[in-house]
Amino acid sequence: MSNYFGNRIKIDIFGQSHSKAIGVTIEGLPAGIDIDEDKLREFLKRRAPGRDQLTTGRKEADEYEIICGMADGKTCGAPLTALIYNKDQHSKDYSNIKDMPRPGHADYTAAVKYDGYNDIAGGGKFSGRLTAPMCIAGGIIMQLLEKEGIRITSHIYSIKDIKDTPYDLNGPFTDVSNRELPVLDKEVIEPMKAAVLEAKNRLDSVGGIIECAITGLRAGIGEPMFDGIENLISRTVFAIPAVKGIEFGRGFEAAGIYGSENNDEFCLSEGQIVTKTNNHGGILGGITSGMPIVFRAAFKPTPSIARPQQSVSLSKMQEGTLEIKGRHDPCIVLRALPCVESAAAIALYDAMT
Amino acid sequence: MSNYFGNRIKIDIFGQSHSKAIGVTIEGLPAGIDIDEDKLREFLKRRAPGRDQLTTGRKEADEYEIICGMADGKTCGAPLTALIYNKDQHSKDYSNIKDMPRPGHADYTAAVKYDGYNDIAGGGKFSGRLTAPMCIAGGIIMQLLEKEGIRITSHIYSIKDIKDTPYDLNGPFTDVSNRELPVLDKEVIEPMKAAVLEAKNRLDSVGGIIECAITGLRAGIGEPMFDGIENLISRTVFAIPAVKGIEFGRGFEAAGIYGSENNDEFCLSEGQIVTKTNNHGGILGGITSGMPIVFRAAFKPTPSIARPQQSVSLSKMQEGTLEIKGRHDPCIVLRALPCVESAAAIALYDAMT
Amino acid sequence: MSNYFGNRIKIDIFGQSHSKAIGVTIEGLPAGIDIDEDKLREFLKRRAPGRDQLTTGRKEADEYEIICGMADGKTCGAPLTALIYNKDQHSKDYSNIKDMPRPGHADYTAAVKYDGYNDIAGGGKFSGRLTAPMCIAGGIIMQLLEKEGIRITSHIYSIKDIKDTPYDLNGPFTDVSNRELPVLDKEVIEPMKAAVLEAKNRLDSVGGIIECAITGLRAGIGEPMFDGIENLISRTVFAIPAVKGIEFGRGFEAAGIYGSENNDEFCLSEGQIVTKTNNHGGILGGITSGMPIVFRAAFKPTPSIARPQQSVSLSKMQEGTLEIKGRHDPCIVLRALPCVESAAAIALYDAMT
Amino acid sequence: MSNYFGNRIKIDIFGQSHSKAIGVTIEGLPAGIDIDEDKLREFLKRRAPGRDQLTTGRKEADEYEIICGMADGKTCGAPLTALIYNKDQHSKDYSNIKDMPRPGHADYTAAVKYDGYNDIAGGGKFSGRLTAPMCIAGGIIMQLLEKEGIRITSHIYSIKDIKDTPYDLNGPFTDVSNRELPVLDKEVIEPMKAAVLEAKNRLDSVGGIIECAITGLRAGIGEPMFDGIENLISRTVFAIPAVKGIEFGRGFEAAGIYGSENNDEFCLSEGQIVTKTNNHGGILGGITSGMPIVFRAAFKPTPSIARPQQSVSLSKMQEGTLEIKGRHDPCIVLRALPCVESAAAIALYDAMT
Repeated sequence: MSNYFGNRIKIDIFGQSHSKAIGVTIEGLPAGIDIDEDKLREFLKRRAPGRDQLTTGRKEADEYEIICGMADGKTCGAPLTALIYNKDQHSKDYSNIKDMPRPGHADYTAAVKYDGYNDIAGGGKFSGRLTAPMCIAGGIIMQLLEKEGIRITSHIYSIKDIKDTPYDLNGPFTDVSNRELPVLDKEVIEPMKAAVLEAKNRLDSVGGIIECAITGLRAGIGEPMFDGIENLISRTVFAIPAVKGIEFGRGFEAAGIYGSENNDEFCLSEGQIVTKTNNHGGILGGITSGMPIVFRAAFKPTPSIARPQQSVSLSKMQEGTLEIKGRHDPCIVLRALPCVESAAAIALYDAMT
Repeated sequence: MSNYFGNRIKIDIFGQSHSKAIGVTIEGLPAGIDIDEDKLREFLKRRAPGRDQLTTGRKEADEYEIICGMADGKTCGAPLTALIYNKDQHSKDYSNIKDMPRPGHADYTAAVKYDGYNDIAGGGKFSGRLTAPMCIAGGIIMQLLEKEGIRITSHIYSIKDIKDTPYDLNGPFTDVSNRELPVLDKEVIEPMKAAVLEAKNRLDSVGGIIECAITGLRAGIGEPMFDGIENLISRTVFAIPAVKGIEFGRGFEAAGIYGSENNDEFCLSEGQIVTKTNNHGGILGGITSGMPIVFRAAFKPTPSIARPQQSVSLSKMQEGTLEIKGRHDPCIVLRALPCVESAAAIALYDAMT
Repeated sequence: MSNYFGNRIKIDIFGQSHSKAIGVTIEGLPAGIDIDEDKLREFLKRRAPGRDQLTTGRKEADEYEIICGMADGKTCGAPLTALIYNKDQHSKDYSNIKDMPRPGHADYTAAVKYDGYNDIAGGGKFSGRLTAPMCIAGGIIMQLLEKEGIRITSHIYSIKDIKDTPYDLNGPFTDVSNRELPVLDKEVIEPMKAAVLEAKNRLDSVGGIIECAITGLRAGIGEPMFDGIENLISRTVFAIPAVKGIEFGRGFEAAGIYGSENNDEFCLSEGQIVTKTNNHGGILGGITSGMPIVFRAAFKPTPSIARPQQSVSLSKMQEGTLEIKGRHDPCIVLRALPCVESAAAIALYDAMT
Repeated sequence: MSNYFGNRIKIDIFGQSHSKAIGVTIEGLPAGIDIDEDKLREFLKRRAPGRDQLTTGRKEADEYEIICGMADGKTCGAPLTALIYNKDQHSKDYSNIKDMPRPGHADYTAAVKYDGYNDIAGGGKFSGRLTAPMCIAGGIIMQLLEKEGIRITSHIYSIKDIKDTPYDLNGPFTDVSNRELPVLDKEVIEPMKAAVLEAKNRLDSVGGIIECAITGLRAGIGEPMFDGIENLISRTVFAIPAVKGIEFGRGFEAAGIYGSENNDEFCLSEGQIVTKTNNHGGILGGITSGMPIVFRAAFKPTPSIARPQQSVSLSKMQEGTLEIKGRHDPCIVLRALPCVESAAAIALYDAMT
């Protein structure tokens, strides 16, 4: 089963790109909490398309409606369900894609799995659009976490070969969500924009890496083995379409250095036990150390590109050429930051029993 | 909960490094199958220490006993439980570690989580020793997968800065498990050995990367979102202590290239739909494409190093210096290959409903 | 977590009695099936109120809308979500109930659990209204089961002290769903109606027992121990408000007889292994025997009665008298048959891996 | 999956009647607790056979060994696994039962489910012997519950047609576990013994009902719908072989009375909100009310009887006569009380998040 995550909190996402509505049911929210809906809308806007020429021309208002789970303006202990009605559906013909799967997409694997009955319109249940309900859940949970002093931030670590300054693993982690592009080093904004536009102009796309940090955590959250924090976060982050890799703390780099370089020695800071360095990225043995959690998620380039590509007609079992029409993001990384933050929030909150 | 994984197949691992026994209960094996125990023992040997000067001097026979789940030499539908009795336990004094957590280990995070009641001896439940029962489960499941033509192989992709030839993502994937070091390019064996010995001699350790490939899969296995193949494999692979990163197919590299470079075009090969390239690593939308699954897992250097390190006395809340005695692997990557294969096997089999 | 059931099929119910909508998400339906919506509507009508003077005067159209999970008129492998918008909500004042919990209801236990933030309007998430989405799920699943030759029927076994003829445990199990009251013996219809009306007239209510049978099952479905068919069915049936007991086959009666009377001997019938009698109610060791499953569920009388009842003011911690206004069913058994059938269908389908 | 239960606490039972060992893994016990092993052994003795002529002549010492999960005499946060080695296995020939399933047993259903590979010796995984590890888990959890003032007691409500005085649903619930037979009314001891012996002498068996009460619970534990307390307890109680029915509070009787008779009015007692009567058996809307939980479980007569019974040869597909040799309990109710208490303890503790 796929659209479902959690134990303490349960997140159940439903809908297809072009179904009447998409949405999410969240069970396990404490009763009696206020949801700051203005803040939630602001959060969702960071994911919404249509902002400028860097993102898809589609306009998805992403206006949600909470249809249950509240009473007198507060959560009431019942599952909270929020819907987003799909308005901007182009009722265009998807039969070419149905017959000839798009490279890099789930068209072919879904056709095999669902015997050809999968909803192909707009990518169906595999659409990046399904990250909108994930962000509703994530945005609400981030509000809960913030009340406990836990803050989740992210920045664009790289787009194609253009790299932002990485986070210092010990922090601080500046909030750059309001910048034109959410990067630490403003000098990389123009080169990144240029890289995206160049890809767009050559009917192509580019990928990138998002770096995410979580601060304010106490030590002792998580479990060894299968339900460690790394296990849970990787499980939710890979739920975001296009993610192909994840690493925590110093990550892959740690594989190339000595133990004496990678080990983080313990020391005292203001009476608290901390580590001098944070190569472990806040997690030891699957359990939080109290240091910031830092991880990076690699996004492949948007698979939807306007160039002709080779594919195979499923009905004729014959090779052919496919051209994908439509409005697509030349770089989904720009819109994926709240998705990564949401995935982290959901995983973390679930572990905080 | 942590020591438990799965839906179709359930893996429940128990034991601590120095408890009377460690073991695993596997529920969901089909009834009526033979287990090739010679083959299983061979598989476990690849994880066992004490082979040479590259690994720890500890001798863990890892002789398992199946105590239930079989009748007349075949699985009988009941849960199968296998035990490994712990014999080579040094009843040494762990009180120094108990009070002064080892950098890079779970000593501190476990002490916080379990209010100081965690079993510290040999690392307790956080010990790499718990990968032995994981390998029992994995080894049995790999036998089931092989009957369906599915094969899992791995090689050392790198140790410190010494890199083996990477897999061609399209295969073939040569079985190198019998080589002195499981690498594709025999020229790197001596340099890798030298790097490990050098680390050992300087009372240090090194990390590395393991690359794993799975072939023989049909298309259509897996789910979108939270239970995709990437989600499941990453969840099980992060259960192996010291893993800090994972990537599928072209992984992090895909973030730096164009969509037109990364997309894998579909074509026909012997009447089957395949992709020309395999940058997607066999998984699209969480679902297998029929192409080989290829992933890499990054291991940090063994945190147990003999050099003095700074830590904090938990009882005195005072900084101090810790020296770790004992016999430790200067590079756990050498023994971790069957663990990675097992994690992949468990995740994959669970998805094959 | 409460509103969620299943492994093979996942049922996630949401909504409160007076929230904007209630609904259900079903994950795990096979792709490519048709849903006979006329048949589903007929099924839901059996649960709907407002039919006659025996049920509540409230009119709940229970018109559902499927908002996702379908493509081209068939299921598409994506979760199917169906909504029922709440129209007939009396925006009356529930503050008296909020302060003074109704005997026999969940008002008090919910107030304690949710710190007083529970939605009290119409019973909130504890309302019998939430059985409507359960019946949507059940009705759809029953259509799947019917395609495999599995049929679920039920009748009113008793209302108060008036008993219908019980099922012969070996069958056949006549479909009486179209009768004025779904009973086997038409002679009990008038006495039952009289009993309900008498209760209504004395501002009271009555309970009853529903007997349910499932035929067409193959042997070998289910598991021993915690996930046996009895375990699963009892778990789903107790999800229906007001159920206080369940028994399978000869049930409690079996506790009073000899083993030689209760054991069902095996014999051959048309080349098939069957049992002569069916005291075991189709389940042995948690697993189906191929004989019909028969069980009975006991419903307490509707707790909402118009008589003054003693309760306690939660704000004043002072005893007082409560009078419940509103339109209530004097006997919910009349409307609960499709709920019991749905609960059985969901449990059974989940076990049919 | 079957041998596994829980969320907060996880119980994983393994073993067959005649495998080398049976056992249980418990995950989720708090770290740092003492287990009173004398008390646990006393508890297990209540389930053990071989006490007198009323129970089977088999001697199962049921001596368990804890092989992990403890450090320095206390739980350490790691899963606790306890084993019972099977000593008194008669290596007799089970081939007759293998071919000709015993009426009332799972022999036939297991043979179908597991394609004939099921372990038939002693009933395999379907044996009542598997309630021993359930009682280890239950006994440990009852010790945890007692520290919170929660007490679980039970008595024999009936054997065949001989009834003990039922519990007053409001309590008190006298501990009668030390009596020759655990009944409230000592006058029924001799008649009950006579009934069991009479059954034994006529090569037959008898069933009975166990009534169980749980006191000391706070209000507010549990969930509506699928994970209510009734749902959880029924799920665990039906895991005990031979249970065919369960009812809570007034149970089936409530179906025959008026709402005004069944509703439990709220009042104050020593400043606490209680109900005057306890027909609801301590659970409203799936959630504890703070009143005692009372339930009854119906046990069918032991299916193993020495009389010749008709069955079918699976290999020849031919009817025949079966005679069961061996030592069997003429009435398992006598030994099932700690099993029922354990099932209740496990379910309840799991709900107490």
